[in-house]
Amino acid sequence: MSTQKKTIGFIGTGVMGGSMAAHLIQAGYQLNVFTRTKSRAKSLLQQGATWKDSVKELAKESDVIITIVGYPSDVEEVYLGEEGLLNHARPGSYLIDMTTSKPSLAKEIFEKAKIKDLFALDAPVSGGDLGARNGTLAIMVGGEEKVFEDMLPIFELMGENIQLQGPAGSGQHTKMSNQITIASNMIGVCEAVTYAQKAGLNPSKVLDSITTGAAGSWSLSNLAPRMIADNYDPGFYVKHFIKDMKIALESAKELGLSTPGLELSLSLYEKLAAEGNENSGTQALIKLFQKTK
Amino acid sequence: MSTQKKTIGFIGTGVMGGSMAAHLIQAGYQLNVFTRTKSRAKSLLQQGATWKDSVKELAKESDVIITIVGYPSDVEEVYLGEEGLLNHARPGSYLIDMTTSKPSLAKEIFEKAKIKDLFALDAPVSGGDLGARNGTLAIMVGGEEKVFEDMLPIFELMGENIQLQGPAGSGQHTKMSNQITIASNMIGVCEAVTYAQKAGLNPSKVLDSITTGAAGSWSLSNLAPRMIADNYDPGFYVKHFIKDMKIALESAKELGLSTPGLELSLSLYEKLAAEGNENSGTQALIKLFQKTK
Repeated sequence: MSTQKKTIGFIGTGVMGGSMAAHLIQAGYQLNVFTRTKSRAKSLLQQGATWKDSVKELAKESDVIITIVGYPSDVEEVYLGEEGLLNHARPGSYLIDMTTSKPSLAKEIFEKAKIKDLFALDAPVSGGDLGARNGTLAIMVGGEEKVFEDMLPIFELMGENIQLQGPAGSGQHTKMSNQITIASNMIGVCEAVTYAQKAGLNPSKVLDSITTGAAGSWSLSNLAPRMIADNYDPGFYVKHFIKDMKIALESAKELGLSTPGLELSLSLYEKLAAEGNENSGTQALIKLFQKTK
Repeated sequence: MSTQKKTIGFIGTGVMGGSMAAHLIQAGYQLNVFTRTKSRAKSLLQQGATWKDSVKELAKESDVIITIVGYPSDVEEVYLGEEGLLNHARPGSYLIDMTTSKPSLAKEIFEKAKIKDLFALDAPVSGGDLGARNGTLAIMVGGEEKVFEDMLPIFELMGENIQLQGPAGSGQHTKMSNQITIASNMIGVCEAVTYAQKAGLNPSKVLDSITTGAAGSWSLSNLAPRMIADNYDPGFYVKHFIKDMKIALESAKELGLSTPGLELSLSLYEKLAAEGNENSGTQALIKLFQKTK
């Protein structure tokens, strides 16, 4: 079995990528890794991965290349740059971008890849650091069905809820729907917790009443308790959420869709970041509400 | 046992009250009922309840009086009006308002009741018509602990998640937290579903990807599928949600809290109602988004 396995190149070994790549090694895949800051690949190298000095070097010796980097500009450079994947991956390679990035960029990569006989998928994830560590991510995929099926065994090592959502870009569009839903809900959760506090209630007890019914949500159950405990450690960074909301807003505008909730949330988070909270968890949004008078 | 039971007066036998009162009859309580439109009490009368011609008549012959009426103005009239409960209930009676109403009014009723040796609780509910029918409502209670404990056996016939949240008004404040949470989340759910539709995705499949993670919520799981099916039947009426949001906004202002998400949601729902949708279910909000260009 193991000898038949494809060699996987993994680009981007941050909090998410590091855990995701480790599952591939544990499953017996030969793994090449490259990331901007080599020290962040240390743990994977200790687990048996092979370091490559550049995207180009990695591309030359991998059958499947998975990327999970920071911003759409990083995706653009890694894929479309002079030294990037489209210029250096071997024909017949699979290119899977798991970064949360622009749907339009995912389509562009897919089309340019196709010309070079490369098989591209966009496959952003949700589930956070814990989902990455436990291999329980939701993976939202855009691309061709055959390519999706070829990659499914690899996806299954990293996630649980794995869905082909449609043609190239559909994974990113689905992730945008996910982030758009969260954006407005975070406002409601912050307003509700602050309201409970200002009304003199015990906010934890209020959660006992409201999390089980029509107000219930993942954010209310998981982030409101952190807000109440003044715990602003990042599960999901404010700066990354801002990035995602900007992509979502741009994409919504391209689709001719008005999104006042998303716009409000983005403006509040930008204010929060400007006040020095960009490296806090998204639950820090409550700070803006608690200080209003 | 049954002969020791208190006689309950029930005022307001709409969709919620009708089901809630029926549980009390089934448990063997003697029930007096009054409601503005007598025909709406028909089913309860057939089940053995006794009709009373006015609040005053009902008050004279009941030990515990439960009200679940429409607007705060109705609560005010039923409790504080010339012919109302505070003027006509027998000393030692229990008065439980389960209407979603103003926290400040609940406090006023409590204080005025106390002077007349009447025991008042505010106890709004969530869980909708289904929760009322199945006896699985969340009941959020404000008032004195001893009074709450006396009434607990009655609450347990109507609900499951029953919490004393604090002194008078705390039940209403908790319900406001509940509605504030829902208000912003509904915007996010509508924007996300419309985004998915405009992006050419299959919105039901998108829900398969996003309901299980950080975007997950009761509204996303229960109302988004109705939006996708163009089903705008009321679970919870637009007009009632507007009422609740107006109370919440007024109450938030009294507390010195800025609630931009709540304000946005209220303005959108008012627009929706103005366009003839006030008797639709709250999921009809998506209509505003689908027609934007």
